[in-house]
Amino acid sequence: MPHDFMPGLAGVPAAKSAISDVDGERGILEYRGIRIEDLCAKSSFLETTSLLFSGRLPKQHELAQFIDDVTHHRQIKIIELLKCLPHDGHPMDALQAAVAALGMFYPGRNVKDVNNNYWSAVRLIAKLPTIIAAYARIRRGNDPIPPRDELNFCQNFLYMLSEAVPEKIWSDTLDACLILHAEHTMNASTFTGLVTASTLADPYTVVASSIGALKGPLHGGANEEVIAMLREIGTPDRVRSYIESKLKAKEKLMGFGHRVYKVKDPRAVILQGLGERLFKACGSSPLYDVAIEVERVAAELLGEKKVYPNVDFYSGILYDKMDIEVDFFTPIFAMARVAGWLAHWFEQLRENKLFRPDQIYSGEHGHPYVPMDQR
Amino acid sequence: MPHDFMPGLAGVPAAKSAISDVDGERGILEYRGIRIEDLCAKSSFLETTSLLFSGRLPKQHELAQFIDDVTHHRQIKIIELLKCLPHDGHPMDALQAAVAALGMFYPGRNVKDVNNNYWSAVRLIAKLPTIIAAYARIRRGNDPIPPRDELNFCQNFLYMLSEAVPEKIWSDTLDACLILHAEHTMNASTFTGLVTASTLADPYTVVASSIGALKGPLHGGANEEVIAMLREIGTPDRVRSYIESKLKAKEKLMGFGHRVYKVKDPRAVILQGLGERLFKACGSSPLYDVAIEVERVAAELLGEKKVYPNVDFYSGILYDKMDIEVDFFTPIFAMARVAGWLAHWFEQLRENKLFRPDQIYSGEHGHPYVPMDQR
Repeated sequence: MPHDFMPGLAGVPAAKSAISDVDGERGILEYRGIRIEDLCAKSSFLETTSLLFSGRLPKQHELAQFIDDVTHHRQIKIIELLKCLPHDGHPMDALQAAVAALGMFYPGRNVKDVNNNYWSAVRLIAKLPTIIAAYARIRRGNDPIPPRDELNFCQNFLYMLSEAVPEKIWSDTLDACLILHAEHTMNASTFTGLVTASTLADPYTVVASSIGALKGPLHGGANEEVIAMLREIGTPDRVRSYIESKLKAKEKLMGFGHRVYKVKDPRAVILQGLGERLFKACGSSPLYDVAIEVERVAAELLGEKKVYPNVDFYSGILYDKMDIEVDFFTPIFAMARVAGWLAHWFEQLRENKLFRPDQIYSGEHGHPYVPMDQR
Repeated sequence: MPHDFMPGLAGVPAAKSAISDVDGERGILEYRGIRIEDLCAKSSFLETTSLLFSGRLPKQHELAQFIDDVTHHRQIKIIELLKCLPHDGHPMDALQAAVAALGMFYPGRNVKDVNNNYWSAVRLIAKLPTIIAAYARIRRGNDPIPPRDELNFCQNFLYMLSEAVPEKIWSDTLDACLILHAEHTMNASTFTGLVTASTLADPYTVVASSIGALKGPLHGGANEEVIAMLREIGTPDRVRSYIESKLKAKEKLMGFGHRVYKVKDPRAVILQGLGERLFKACGSSPLYDVAIEVERVAAELLGEKKVYPNVDFYSGILYDKMDIEVDFFTPIFAMARVAGWLAHWFEQLRENKLFRPDQIYSGEHGHPYVPMDQR
């Protein structure tokens, strides 16, 4: 039976997967069956990555080995290449270019070699933060700061960005943000990666393709637009008139609504908690004050439409508080989501079939080639 | 009604499209309703690109303008970046990295700006050959050769590769090859591009994602493996025993079979004609002699299974005759297919919906987070 055409493949299963699941009605997100709230409170990004890859929480020696492997693969050889990039380009483009180039340093990457695949995954998890921090510094005219092995994953990233070892609450907050962004079923960037992976392209190529999709303003790029909106609004007292004018013009409210969630995105709830803890310890955030008012007024005006804040609504406010520049929010998203992309890549390889969907041809047939002088 | 899970989305329509259509039973491929045989015989790659973009054959002044625009955008600013890449990496990785970086030179690429989109497409069509030729030369330790405006698209590409203006039959043959590879409905690289485009990522990002998918050995990368097979066989008298041993081991014959065609791929038929003309003019090809014997013996042994040569089977033999290195076959495929990717990108933008397919969750629910000392 021919399938109906569903724009955006909405509701059409593209894969069987045991990696994560969303209950959009109840606002539950699980990685390998474990709720995201538990992971954010008790796990770490690298432990969660190991969980996503292998399907179960690692034993102590397994986690120690994985952390050790990642820690010793943080160095990058592509500093000179990053220096050739324009300083006013988008860091997501720099990241896509750098990851595509990264693969060239590891030739002979036959994806049928399981051991090789593990090391490719380790390198990608380890090196993305180094690439991102290096480009952030090069863009400002500074030299990149090499990673320091004694710092943990998030401490080291923030250190490479700022040359200062961060306070614990900063690196802990970032770590929880990375857990929250690590995986989310069959989204556009994961799907782009799966289609690319199905050609048996290597994981650097797969991740470079996924980075491309994540960059789009309808996907990862949305968090930048939330900050732009909150800055445009400026103060809580201007929220109501802003939202009313947006609704009147039938324009979208940035950071609201999600194809899957019919309630508030559980990640937004957790981010809000993380933010409140951070602002208590390190001072308030004017953007957050605007944001909670936006959420309150939106609930009042949009409530019956069940349009709630999504993950993009609060993440940028936290990164902004950490002095991270707005156009680096999506690269940080990529630094987390690479765990999910690779988990899906591993899964895809176990039972691969090339993606070759159909199309509904809406054009004509049998046109002649009309010579130039008769057109 | 929930959709059935179709691995690889086989038979599932992913888009409505008026760009190209395949009749797999009769072996007909049309671009905008015009048969590929007519286009290869009478059109040029740039005219075909214009046809794919706009839906109709260009009038004289339109084509002249398009050729002029492409000719004047061949220069690239990323020579230094290409020099930073390892010389033993795959040129498709170099191309993916370079195209991602290329976008950084043109910031503010809002895809809602139609005029901007035209110039992005012109740049991508114009600059891919320059990037590919530059990396080919850098890899050999030579300096890149700048494009020459008075040479046509394929003359200029072969000139940038070899520093010699090619004979007409060489550039004409390459031009027909590019027409043949320019577009082919909803293949994996086009689909990767569409998913990326649906996030409203810019066209450099979209094309960089598509390049990633095209690289895979199950997609564009297949033509390299055909040459490896023909070289392994070596001489026509060894064909039968080679194929028999492959069939006995239940291994695939490279360059044979296609999900869509139930007859011989019409592109393979055209390529064979182009090859015979080229070999008559410029001397025989030992690889071609092996290839036609492979086709003959395969037809005899596989005939009833209806497995015929596809486009990858003959393309490499022609490029090999033009002294193009094996790992540059897929970059040349990309240089052609970018026309199709961009045509689909233009089409997608007109009625965009974010791709967000579903998945069938095969994992478990409600696992606790088990503390480390209890695992």
